[in-house]
Amino acid sequence: MRKTLTTLAICTILLTPTVLFAEQAATPQLAYQLVEELTTEVGPRLVGTPGDAKAVEWATKRLKSLGFDKVWTEEFTTPFWQRGQARLEIVSPFPQSLVLAALGGSVSTPNEGIQAAVVMFNSLEELMAADRSKVAGKIVFINKAMTKDRQGSQYGKVVGGRSKGAVEAAKLGAKAIIIRSVGTSNNRFAHTGKMTYEEGVDKIPAAAISVPDAQQLARILNKAPDAKIKLNLQTTNEDAISHNVIAEMTGSERPQEIVLIGAHLDSWDQGTGALDDGAGVGIVMATAVLVKQQAKPKRTIRVVLYGNEEGGLVGARAYAAKHSEELKNHVFASESDFGAGKIWQFDTGFGNKALAFAAEIQKKLAPLGIQPGNNQAFGGPDVSVLKPFGVPVASLEQDGTDYFDYHHTPNDTLDKIDPKALEQNVQAWVIMTGMVANSDTDFRQ
Amino acid sequence: MRKTLTTLAICTILLTPTVLFAEQAATPQLAYQLVEELTTEVGPRLVGTPGDAKAVEWATKRLKSLGFDKVWTEEFTTPFWQRGQARLEIVSPFPQSLVLAALGGSVSTPNEGIQAAVVMFNSLEELMAADRSKVAGKIVFINKAMTKDRQGSQYGKVVGGRSKGAVEAAKLGAKAIIIRSVGTSNNRFAHTGKMTYEEGVDKIPAAAISVPDAQQLARILNKAPDAKIKLNLQTTNEDAISHNVIAEMTGSERPQEIVLIGAHLDSWDQGTGALDDGAGVGIVMATAVLVKQQAKPKRTIRVVLYGNEEGGLVGARAYAAKHSEELKNHVFASESDFGAGKIWQFDTGFGNKALAFAAEIQKKLAPLGIQPGNNQAFGGPDVSVLKPFGVPVASLEQDGTDYFDYHHTPNDTLDKIDPKALEQNVQAWVIMTGMVANSDTDFRQ
Repeated sequence: MRKTLTTLAICTILLTPTVLFAEQAATPQLAYQLVEELTTEVGPRLVGTPGDAKAVEWATKRLKSLGFDKVWTEEFTTPFWQRGQARLEIVSPFPQSLVLAALGGSVSTPNEGIQAAVVMFNSLEELMAADRSKVAGKIVFINKAMTKDRQGSQYGKVVGGRSKGAVEAAKLGAKAIIIRSVGTSNNRFAHTGKMTYEEGVDKIPAAAISVPDAQQLARILNKAPDAKIKLNLQTTNEDAISHNVIAEMTGSERPQEIVLIGAHLDSWDQGTGALDDGAGVGIVMATAVLVKQQAKPKRTIRVVLYGNEEGGLVGARAYAAKHSEELKNHVFASESDFGAGKIWQFDTGFGNKALAFAAEIQKKLAPLGIQPGNNQAFGGPDVSVLKPFGVPVASLEQDGTDYFDYHHTPNDTLDKIDPKALEQNVQAWVIMTGMVANSDTDFRQ
Repeated sequence: MRKTLTTLAICTILLTPTVLFAEQAATPQLAYQLVEELTTEVGPRLVGTPGDAKAVEWATKRLKSLGFDKVWTEEFTTPFWQRGQARLEIVSPFPQSLVLAALGGSVSTPNEGIQAAVVMFNSLEELMAADRSKVAGKIVFINKAMTKDRQGSQYGKVVGGRSKGAVEAAKLGAKAIIIRSVGTSNNRFAHTGKMTYEEGVDKIPAAAISVPDAQQLARILNKAPDAKIKLNLQTTNEDAISHNVIAEMTGSERPQEIVLIGAHLDSWDQGTGALDDGAGVGIVMATAVLVKQQAKPKRTIRVVLYGNEEGGLVGARAYAAKHSEELKNHVFASESDFGAGKIWQFDTGFGNKALAFAAEIQKKLAPLGIQPGNNQAFGGPDVSVLKPFGVPVASLEQDGTDYFDYHHTPNDTLDKIDPKALEQNVQAWVIMTGMVANSDTDFRQ
């Protein structure tokens, strides 16, 4: 019995460091509890909305209750975009409605909508190569499919249609643009996401239709190339105030050295932002609490819950600007923002000398099924803003196979999180953060 | 080579009878082509809407083009219900919107909606056993989950909350009722479906929320039992004209003997009715064409595409009434209306003497992976109306494991049909229908 217990204890140290201090309440399940609270009690939290303010209030209160030494908010001003009604009708020859969502930042159509013929392209590149005569006066439809893999590697190849499609379509005289959702599921949800305009190019309305609706529209256009559709999007664009929420567990020996772990607090409006990025919020909050309990960190652990990531890293840029003088003291930064799948890889963006220490971390992560990377981490979307300032970063890469099934849709809800996978995330984050916060290594070197 | 061809030829006869007349165009793929046309060119076809009329027009035209000897429509009057706006908000303490769909037949709320506290029950039975004091003045929430199996056997145990919940809630003084969707997927779609009122009991509004939203509401009520919600449903109820569409391949020897194969042409409004019941429409239309090609049937094959099944078998009752004199000549009837999954069982509702012939059919179906039933078939929803009049029925039971993931939601779209499974359906239908139409057996005996 004793022997069994000893073996168990060793396993516990290696695999579940979080139960070492059994007398304290926090466990890896804390992360799930936090994302449950955020998604249930706050729900959607698009920047500028009451939900955003409520999320800031929730986070501030909750970080205090978790025993962080310092908790504060940092205000920033930000564009505030909201969707109103959205309708897309096949007018002729096969009248029916399609499921759509305005893309973030899109202007409105006139009140009566825009009715036009459609010109379909298989990709942004095909649109860009098209003759103006083929496009002018029409509604552009980019019907590019996205396939799945663990790294979500196809996202970058497809998302250009969403972010730059309106500009390229407008350059050729299009009246509006609709895209096939940048997503991997055949469920009938439209994926929203940020799009951009360009100075000097007409701003035209932009929306995504669900994958089944894109297939339907393609079938309709094959049968009836002159089909007419009518798009009606109403949106608003204003300015708003939002906040980054920041909290620290003060380091016991070198408190001025900052180990930043982050996630973003805002979400798109359609779902409750469980995977994007409630999971990350839960993971990094729980990680700081558990590391403090278990490792009594020498360096300061700073949790940054960024505002308005979805609108284009607005909170991250505000953080970098406000803390520009202090960035030299940021010894490390990492973000969790790719859902709640199991972590399969640890990667760094360290100086060469520090790679020996990275290998030490990797050794501790290996029992969780985590493989080494190749020192090419970007650290996560918000944290990537710090990398050009020389801040060393790392990424605990999550399995994102299913991430783009849910990403930016109404279907990003709590039930999509596997609590066991979330625990594995926390275990890995505790190992990495604990070792980094107790190390003397300069990861810049 | 010759030997291989012979073996192949035998396999073809047993497994794919549809390619016997290779010079003719029709193949088992015809069913997919038909459901593709119906769902793309017509789309949603709720009874009374323009889509319903368009479906009747499409079917009539298409049946003629497929070479049926007679094609006609039969008019009936029917209730015509339509949904308008639907909103469900958590007012306090955690403001957010939930995804919902009015149940078919529901009355409207007042224009300003109904705001009230919520009382949650785990089942219709639990509601029926409740004290009036617990329910009066509140909105009832029935949160009963449905699990999956091949036969959809849990549907009957859960659907009572949908069909009878409003009556039972109103008897106890409730202001409205919302139910957890009668469905098996955790995608955020609300399942609509028919509900009923009872003479002498207040008519209260009724809606379904998606499974994730039901889980969310349950969590909210656990945290805040006094939570207030606001329901706003706008609906219309009128009368309309619709049609059954009927077509015959005339029997070569005993044309007065009718072999009825049916499906329903109408669909709910949220999706395009691919599984429910576009697939059935494609299957029975293709079956008649293929049997005519291959078996030169002695009896008449009558395809009946029923109107308004979803509103409560309205077209089926109209058919039974109009053809009451002729029902004695209906030697057989069967319907396809459980999606597009592979057929796994053949069952009959025959007289005992005819079971020997059923066994002959079963022998031919076995190579398709089809097992025998126990002579308890009900024939399908619309065809079940004929059974009490003594019409012998049969059912080719489909694998419905995933059917209730999509049933009555916006997600019932063409991409949910597996063309290979649909072909297997057609192969089985051709075998059954061909043998029945060429038999001398009286299935009543």
